[in-house]
Amino acid sequence: MKRRVRMIIQYDGTNYEGWQRQLTGMGIQQIMEEELFKLTGHECVLNASGRTDSGVHALAQVAHFDTDCRIPAEKFAFALNTGLPRDIRAVYSDEAPQGFHARFDVKRKHYRYAVKNTRHDCPFTRNYALHYHWKLDMAKLNEAAAMFVGEHDFKAFMAVGVKPKSTVRTIYSSEWKEENGLLVFNVAGSGFLYNMVRIMVGAMLQYGQNRNTDGIRLALETGKRDYAGPTAPAHGLTLARVQYDGFDTADIVKP
Amino acid sequence: MKRRVRMIIQYDGTNYEGWQRQLTGMGIQQIMEEELFKLTGHECVLNASGRTDSGVHALAQVAHFDTDCRIPAEKFAFALNTGLPRDIRAVYSDEAPQGFHARFDVKRKHYRYAVKNTRHDCPFTRNYALHYHWKLDMAKLNEAAAMFVGEHDFKAFMAVGVKPKSTVRTIYSSEWKEENGLLVFNVAGSGFLYNMVRIMVGAMLQYGQNRNTDGIRLALETGKRDYAGPTAPAHGLTLARVQYDGFDTADIVKP
Repeated sequence: MKRRVRMIIQYDGTNYEGWQRQLTGMGIQQIMEEELFKLTGHECVLNASGRTDSGVHALAQVAHFDTDCRIPAEKFAFALNTGLPRDIRAVYSDEAPQGFHARFDVKRKHYRYAVKNTRHDCPFTRNYALHYHWKLDMAKLNEAAAMFVGEHDFKAFMAVGVKPKSTVRTIYSSEWKEENGLLVFNVAGSGFLYNMVRIMVGAMLQYGQNRNTDGIRLALETGKRDYAGPTAPAHGLTLARVQYDGFDTADIVKP
Repeated sequence: MKRRVRMIIQYDGTNYEGWQRQLTGMGIQQIMEEELFKLTGHECVLNASGRTDSGVHALAQVAHFDTDCRIPAEKFAFALNTGLPRDIRAVYSDEAPQGFHARFDVKRKHYRYAVKNTRHDCPFTRNYALHYHWKLDMAKLNEAAAMFVGEHDFKAFMAVGVKPKSTVRTIYSSEWKEENGLLVFNVAGSGFLYNMVRIMVGAMLQYGQNRNTDGIRLALETGKRDYAGPTAPAHGLTLARVQYDGFDTADIVKP
């Protein structure tokens, strides 16, 4: 009988072309699907809470697949890890409740974006935080972050060329904190448009230096991408937490 | 006129064969010396506070070299970083006081050893912390760590085949702490024998599971390597701080 298995997955995105299947073979999805094929003996489609771009990391990505093989759902994390490369780990697996869908059922997603705001970059955070040597003002960063809270049309905070049904999203929290020598932006929302967090961060980095301080307001009001400034690089971004009704990755992986 | 320049260097040791010159060309020392040659126009010998093994990291290594070139001592960190690979950074440079020697003048060295004591390894700490899935008892780890404090003959805590003048060393502090989901051993000493910290950690990991609980005491008493247990892997180890009279890396790089 077919069961739906759900998993929490962590990955260091540095060496991959993002979540989605790629012709290069270096999408995280297909690397995991190949391991699932070896374990289950049949082709599996792994549905994630959403795609992540090339270079973006996940502390807690959620994905599901269907199988009729006899491996208990709880054992999949261990079984997969024996074959996966060390920069991808399944850290939890269970049998999903009836009708669960990793993408359609998402209630909240949380991202973090880390910035190393020092003169010299650090070898240990080089792949996980943006090195930014222009001095940033923490109070200004949080002033900027607060502007995103609530329901807004985020059309200006989306990569060009994409056409989603709606560009309205709700941001529940949006805040910068100092954490182990990094400036870390934590944001929670109902969902995010393509490149949305990275464009938000790009705009806030300008604001945090007292440059283009009308940009965020104008971008939200007019929907014009130009006001929002440049897109911040992928490697500072991490998918930190995904929440569903009755299932929260934070109960298993501390964000 | 010849001046002595001193630097604080950070490196992610994952992709290198340790500090020292190697036939492979992948010693951190020679990678830096090649950059110094490009900058100064003459051959430079870079003297570090001590060697680190293949895979071992440095949050704060100290090294000096002599030069008569006209680049101000304070500018060397910036100048070097333009040419160095991203996993090696000079984070500070200045002109050393008369007669300073990075190795001979060391007063205290501090190492940290990180352990990820969870069921599944973590992609983000995989190169900086040992994944150890056997349950460790923090109180036991600290009981073991305390045994090293003071002046002891550490002959048993040294890789075989090495013959230093003396195997007596003083340990000033030796303690385990929980830090961001890791168990971290911090140790400060007058100096360390070859592989000493890694053998200490190997012995403590046994003790922390209530195995071989006489091993550390017997190893210290008899000097027999066999009592101390296995050597812990290199990648969990980081040189965290070096102290001299009047110069402490902790003033520049927070350990």
